[in-house]
Amino acid sequence: MDKESRAVFDRMFAPQSLAIVGISKSEAGIGRFFLANLERAGYRGRIFLVNRDAGEIMGRPVYPDIAALPEAVDLAILCVPARFVLSLLEECRGKGIRNVHLFTSGFKELGTPEGRELENKVREEALRGRLNLMGPNCMGSYVPASGLMLFGQIPGTPGGLAFLSQSGSLTQRMTEHAHFLGFGLSKAVSFGNATVLDSTEYLEYLEEDNDTKAVGFYLESVKDGRRFLEVAERVNRRKPLVVWKGGKTSIGARAAASHTGTLAGEDRVWEHALRQIGVARADSLEEVAATALAFLRLPPPRGRRLFILGGGGGNSVFYADICLELGLEIPPLTGNTRERISALVPAVGSFALNPVDAWQSFHDPDLLARMLDLVFDDPAYDMIILDRLIHRRVYATPENPKNIPLSLDYLKRNRGRKPLVAVVDGFGDDLILASEAIQLRRLFNEAGIPAYPSLPLAARALAHLVHYYEKHSPTTR
Amino acid sequence: MDKESRAVFDRMFAPQSLAIVGISKSEAGIGRFFLANLERAGYRGRIFLVNRDAGEIMGRPVYPDIAALPEAVDLAILCVPARFVLSLLEECRGKGIRNVHLFTSGFKELGTPEGRELENKVREEALRGRLNLMGPNCMGSYVPASGLMLFGQIPGTPGGLAFLSQSGSLTQRMTEHAHFLGFGLSKAVSFGNATVLDSTEYLEYLEEDNDTKAVGFYLESVKDGRRFLEVAERVNRRKPLVVWKGGKTSIGARAAASHTGTLAGEDRVWEHALRQIGVARADSLEEVAATALAFLRLPPPRGRRLFILGGGGGNSVFYADICLELGLEIPPLTGNTRERISALVPAVGSFALNPVDAWQSFHDPDLLARMLDLVFDDPAYDMIILDRLIHRRVYATPENPKNIPLSLDYLKRNRGRKPLVAVVDGFGDDLILASEAIQLRRLFNEAGIPAYPSLPLAARALAHLVHYYEKHSPTTR
Repeated sequence: MDKESRAVFDRMFAPQSLAIVGISKSEAGIGRFFLANLERAGYRGRIFLVNRDAGEIMGRPVYPDIAALPEAVDLAILCVPARFVLSLLEECRGKGIRNVHLFTSGFKELGTPEGRELENKVREEALRGRLNLMGPNCMGSYVPASGLMLFGQIPGTPGGLAFLSQSGSLTQRMTEHAHFLGFGLSKAVSFGNATVLDSTEYLEYLEEDNDTKAVGFYLESVKDGRRFLEVAERVNRRKPLVVWKGGKTSIGARAAASHTGTLAGEDRVWEHALRQIGVARADSLEEVAATALAFLRLPPPRGRRLFILGGGGGNSVFYADICLELGLEIPPLTGNTRERISALVPAVGSFALNPVDAWQSFHDPDLLARMLDLVFDDPAYDMIILDRLIHRRVYATPENPKNIPLSLDYLKRNRGRKPLVAVVDGFGDDLILASEAIQLRRLFNEAGIPAYPSLPLAARALAHLVHYYEKHSPTTR
Repeated sequence: MDKESRAVFDRMFAPQSLAIVGISKSEAGIGRFFLANLERAGYRGRIFLVNRDAGEIMGRPVYPDIAALPEAVDLAILCVPARFVLSLLEECRGKGIRNVHLFTSGFKELGTPEGRELENKVREEALRGRLNLMGPNCMGSYVPASGLMLFGQIPGTPGGLAFLSQSGSLTQRMTEHAHFLGFGLSKAVSFGNATVLDSTEYLEYLEEDNDTKAVGFYLESVKDGRRFLEVAERVNRRKPLVVWKGGKTSIGARAAASHTGTLAGEDRVWEHALRQIGVARADSLEEVAATALAFLRLPPPRGRRLFILGGGGGNSVFYADICLELGLEIPPLTGNTRERISALVPAVGSFALNPVDAWQSFHDPDLLARMLDLVFDDPAYDMIILDRLIHRRVYATPENPKNIPLSLDYLKRNRGRKPLVAVVDGFGDDLILASEAIQLRRLFNEAGIPAYPSLPLAARALAHLVHYYEKHSPTTR
């Protein structure tokens, strides 16, 4: 991406000024929603409002058209009916505006010839005006660092993940995951029909964006598959990508056509292409978030051999199945580690398998530290999962509140030694259990230890991490 | 199963009297845990305690041995070290006791010749005494209707699911699911190494058990595969079965061997055999619970065509993928239903696809009822999922508290028309959102409408329902 294009993009994501064009004089409407959110988020740039019936909205002056604006704003947000869009894009060009977020829907996604034609004209007009056009049919940008939060979790959390998505509601959900899991977002973009700017262009920009350390995607299509893969392969070497692709099946593709007017493409082509360039593929938003958490928080693993502490008998069996199916290995204890762990927890000694069901260590921070020190030092293990059962009302062992901070303190101090994550499962619709699980996960996450609600999710995140670093060794990158 | 064996089993699950043999005089130990739970659960049979050092425990007299008991109890629970087990089984035989729950571990699961040999002797002695032996290495029975809750969620909820499991901790979790989702348990059995009674024997008993309407399993192995499949095929015709099988992979099988001392068997053999007899196969405890909820609460669907209300754009695409991959169909709206829903929700009209993203209906009980009436009456649809987005703090539309009871009232009155389930997703570690989601799901569940935390889980449950009734038509059964 050339320097000038980059400078334009910079202003898109950190605008000094913006205009909401087509904001309603009544209390309803998306423009009012965007304005309220910018105010709530403490956006510090200049905000201009445009509506043909000039006057005042929420104490701010309203300009009758784009030409009347006192400056060429860094970002124009258009929320007008589709039939007004073309003339407004002309106005933007006339004013020298370069970045346009086109919220408006009613284009290709209608599935009508008129919709397609109008969208083609939008594209032509945007190219004529050299407009950096986001959309149409999208919620736009969410950038916590610059207060540009048109939607999503407010206050947001700035962080290392960029999220590129053709769905507004999934982008919305990702802003919540990023905030409550604490890894944060550098930029999230809901870009809808992708008429001008497609995921490829945003990704090229993110390649050199210092705030972005990893990139997640929700895609239904890309316009130029070859170019997308070229750029993705290049960026992935420096910043891990995680792609969730919707529209895998014929019915999903039909839904995608009606959602963003795009063609989803053969799923097995996607599968093959992403595997070949070593890009992680996720199957859900939770998996994108979980994988981001792993990439952003953990040191690179040296291999795929996992030590699992906890679980209980039946879970150990099922956990082993899950991990093996994902290509991870779970070697049994041997040598010094086996002897010393058996001495620490005699009940484990007779099995000395892996997963190691030594729940005692969760009630004894010193025991936990001694066991983990052995595993950190043992070259037979590359990664660790703590399956942290919480006190259940039905069990008799009460939790000593002092134990958790002590254990967390140890884990925090030893974060760099090997990738370690926690699992705290609160499924089952017990309100008390679920709340305790969320609060405990939050404590782990705040200490920089990724904490997941289920082992399968944790294992998938770690498997992505392993596969990435097997292809992109941290020393040779 | 003959009448006499049935009568013995009846007493195992609803004992008039039981003995806890090997209960500790100190406050620790599993026998004390069992006793405390029986008291908490309000078990109304006679409880006898046995310990070589007679005296008193928790205000109850303690008998020095089994021979000294005033009666041949309906159930003897043995929690003694493994080396004492054989002589105690002899004592049970001498006393005329028929049901024994052997909690004790230290047998085949050790993986040693001594462990195997001791377990073989236990089996021989049990057969000699015609003992109905549960275990060893297991938590035993959980029967809310008879107050026999040695472990698990207390108070428990009686209900239509029986759960047979080789894992104590997973049985424990199932008691929580059954309670908090409200479908309840008829009997849950953690049966461990299955030395005498295997899943097949319990299942034969459940075949004629009036309290049991469906049977879930967590299995690591069965001793006689052919016989299990024969019985499972027969019972499944009357009561749907859902099998979760652990030990699918070599490492999982290794863990199973160390958990219950059993051989897991080739997974593809299981897969093929279960499919051939039309038994549902689940991949997680949540899926067993979700499927039970569907079987116990919903009328049989007439086909596999699903109507999905809600979702939002991106979710609709992903939802369609998931459902299609599970063999469900999602036909678009046509004819009268299309016209009238388009008139009710003009924004939907232009797409008229399925999933139908008419979130407005969740803020307007009358609109919801009118839309659903159309779908209930339309022969093009067999089942319905309501994807009930809850109010998120980041969105502006507040929930009117009157709406939910009104909508639930409509749904409750129309339960019999077609299978209908709700999805209320609260993922993402936002404590407030998660709590609201659990509470809303509880309201649905209390009204008899199965409510799930994710669409994939709901879709899997419905797919099991569809496949079952395609094979076992409700009219011909």
